[in-house]
Amino acid sequence: MKFTSKIFNSHPSSDGDFFLGMKKILGFKPKNLEIYKKAFLHRSVNKKDADGNPMNYERLEFLGDSMLGTIISKHLYNEVPEGDEGYLTKMRSKVVSRKHLNELGKDLGLLRFVESRIPKTHFGENIHGNVFEALIGAIYLDRGYAYCEKFINERVIEPYVDIEQLEGKVISYKSLVIEWCQKQKTPFSYNVYEDTGNDELKHFAVKLTIGGRILAKARATSKKKAEEKASKRAYFALQNRMENQ
Amino acid sequence: MKFTSKIFNSHPSSDGDFFLGMKKILGFKPKNLEIYKKAFLHRSVNKKDADGNPMNYERLEFLGDSMLGTIISKHLYNEVPEGDEGYLTKMRSKVVSRKHLNELGKDLGLLRFVESRIPKTHFGENIHGNVFEALIGAIYLDRGYAYCEKFINERVIEPYVDIEQLEGKVISYKSLVIEWCQKQKTPFSYNVYEDTGNDELKHFAVKLTIGGRILAKARATSKKKAEEKASKRAYFALQNRMENQ
Repeated sequence: MKFTSKIFNSHPSSDGDFFLGMKKILGFKPKNLEIYKKAFLHRSVNKKDADGNPMNYERLEFLGDSMLGTIISKHLYNEVPEGDEGYLTKMRSKVVSRKHLNELGKDLGLLRFVESRIPKTHFGENIHGNVFEALIGAIYLDRGYAYCEKFINERVIEPYVDIEQLEGKVISYKSLVIEWCQKQKTPFSYNVYEDTGNDELKHFAVKLTIGGRILAKARATSKKKAEEKASKRAYFALQNRMENQ
Repeated sequence: MKFTSKIFNSHPSSDGDFFLGMKKILGFKPKNLEIYKKAFLHRSVNKKDADGNPMNYERLEFLGDSMLGTIISKHLYNEVPEGDEGYLTKMRSKVVSRKHLNELGKDLGLLRFVESRIPKTHFGENIHGNVFEALIGAIYLDRGYAYCEKFINERVIEPYVDIEQLEGKVISYKSLVIEWCQKQKTPFSYNVYEDTGNDELKHFAVKLTIGGRILAKARATSKKKAEEKASKRAYFALQNRMENQ
């Protein structure tokens, strides 16, 4: 496959735009913007630093992957006092699975910051998770451990880490709602839109319409979480009907 | 294999002794001593907390393993700007190898703190590395990231992480010295003793005697490091003779 030397998906035109974009995603101000730029630099750009070392996000991804694992480990350690080492290892690998990280990167829309000579459409799914990890590596170098922990709490743990769901004890409310609608042959739709309002963090809002009526609304820091919240509300509203089927 | 219900290798008789022992190893004062006690509790003791959850070092080992990996990753990231992700991964796995961690735990004499129903002599080598990792987990919970980083810098990185040696570019000076002595049929001995002096951290001193003369002395935070330092000094003292062989 041959690519032109054109750079695709380049950073927002100015440092100011990139700074604002980062600030919105991070929930705080980046100090050293250069580190964050590196987190979105694909190897195809073939950039080198002043000493001739290749510059791309892969080294930051290595660092971020490790830090993410550590903070998830600490969370699980504190949240599940009854879980042994094997349990903690298994749960951590669910949280940091490739699939899950790709979802996280996609929800944050990180691809738009990626600088590359490969057209966006040629990337596989993993680019989303890779730059998400690289972004954590950048936070670690720029602002240290405490900011990483805060970011991971807000962006990974709060919206995604539901231990009961990870254990498979509770299947998702969204699937319960969809199943019900399909059985009832009732049309339904989830309308998701960005609704950040005055928050520093990006937020998503969802309207769940069932049988032509808006049955629930919800707002959260990820699409999935917002949908799940709305579904849970709708589920309880429908519960009597569902149980009497 | 059957064991009596006697508890072997129990903690130093009083909390005060345990506190002092920890303080010497850590280089700072532990706040919550109970967490450190857990780091030395073998599952054979079969202890449970107030909620009936098993208490032993295995969960702390999980946590410490992850934190150790993260801090080594950051060190390698900063020290080797030319190394790509694959190189960093390989170097990290050398530093945190089971063999290496066992050595670290042994040098610190951690086994004497282990509480277990299994006699000391029945443990394999891995107990040393396991409680070393658990100890890092305990520091993380008790004092947070910055203390972990300081401890790992002093106890792992400074005494052990020589990137050129890890890469195999420089073999150890100790082996150069031993080789020379054997060729020359000259007797040699390394005399290692604990010499902590006024330092908070445990230190080791070494006298290297070659052909009846004390050729070099050195002092460091691990036996291996002290021997290597002394060997390096002796090596340069002997260099002319070695090169003219």
